[in-house]
Amino acid sequence: MKIYDVENFPNPLRVRVALAEKNALNSVTFIPVDLMNGEHRSPEFLARNPGAGVPVLELDDGTYISECTAITEYIDHAFEGPSLTGNTPKERAVISMMQSRAESMVLDAIATYFHHGTDGLGPELETYQNKEWGQKQREKAIKGLEYFNSVLAGQEFIAGDTFTVADITLWSGLVFGGFCEVGIPSELTNLVKWHEKVLARPSIAA
Amino acid sequence: MKIYDVENFPNPLRVRVALAEKNALNSVTFIPVDLMNGEHRSPEFLARNPGAGVPVLELDDGTYISECTAITEYIDHAFEGPSLTGNTPKERAVISMMQSRAESMVLDAIATYFHHGTDGLGPELETYQNKEWGQKQREKAIKGLEYFNSVLAGQEFIAGDTFTVADITLWSGLVFGGFCEVGIPSELTNLVKWHEKVLARPSIAA
Repeated sequence: MKIYDVENFPNPLRVRVALAEKNALNSVTFIPVDLMNGEHRSPEFLARNPGAGVPVLELDDGTYISECTAITEYIDHAFEGPSLTGNTPKERAVISMMQSRAESMVLDAIATYFHHGTDGLGPELETYQNKEWGQKQREKAIKGLEYFNSVLAGQEFIAGDTFTVADITLWSGLVFGGFCEVGIPSELTNLVKWHEKVLARPSIAA
Repeated sequence: MKIYDVENFPNPLRVRVALAEKNALNSVTFIPVDLMNGEHRSPEFLARNPGAGVPVLELDDGTYISECTAITEYIDHAFEGPSLTGNTPKERAVISMMQSRAESMVLDAIATYFHHGTDGLGPELETYQNKEWGQKQREKAIKGLEYFNSVLAGQEFIAGDTFTVADITLWSGLVFGGFCEVGIPSELTNLVKWHEKVLARPSIAA
């Protein structure tokens, strides 16, 4: 199994943390993608992922899987260990819903703010920017953080009382926030506590 | 099991078609949401789905599930019949990936074009519009259709040789396209053929 990625980028981190939670980091060969020099837009890379994003998982039979949600789901099913995506239909649905919300309300909103509302990856890579849209997405992300703070008033983790892919996705949104000064407002104390707890997990602290 | 929705809206249709594929439409009570008069933004509705979108599934134990991907996944696991989300880790990953692409490359792009690049649901409901972003999303959707046409050069359906949630999602994107004049360009012949085949399925034709 191979993963094409950029170490420490938010979406690649989602996959690496899922692997670490499954104690399976050693089962994968990581192949760095030179994103800053546009390798993700080369014909070779686009054949692996027409969406031009990292990470991409290559299975041993040559199948390419992109889209982080699909990759982390694959990892969860392919390796032993506590489930990150749920076991019963209801657990799976709740985790899937909360992960979708973590993506749309925080991670994707911050990513769009980064690429449109700030200099992003610089003028050569950011070929189209819409500043106003970027700013709106920043506001959306802050509202998203407020929402998750309210969720955490009644439970330990984003999708209930166990750590799941939904927590990984929200955490990676905050990693992205670190690139563009979107942090947790200090009054969101449930979220601050959750963040500390998540940062202390061996899969993330290591 | 209850579903709060608006009949014939694109995302609600995804759930209704998934139920029809499972022969389970009669297992659900549908409760109409008066979206045109803003019921989806009422405190009662926001308690069911803070994202203010339809559909929302209410389980018999009172749990609310929103986000269409989560709802269709629940339906697939809760009812008998051919799998719409895959059985093996690899099948699941491929279907999940292709469904994510159908969402981001077509359905979500067309939805954003509709709400920002056209009059959308009218001035009372469209409280913020970004016309330029809307137009860009229209361009993205057309490129997405070109991508799926290329995928269909080698296989019967979006995620392989069986009908899955990825097909439902792409089809619902085209339903949305019908609201804002985004259709399949006639030169995309693989996609045109796929569309005819999908429209003839009993779950959709009925």
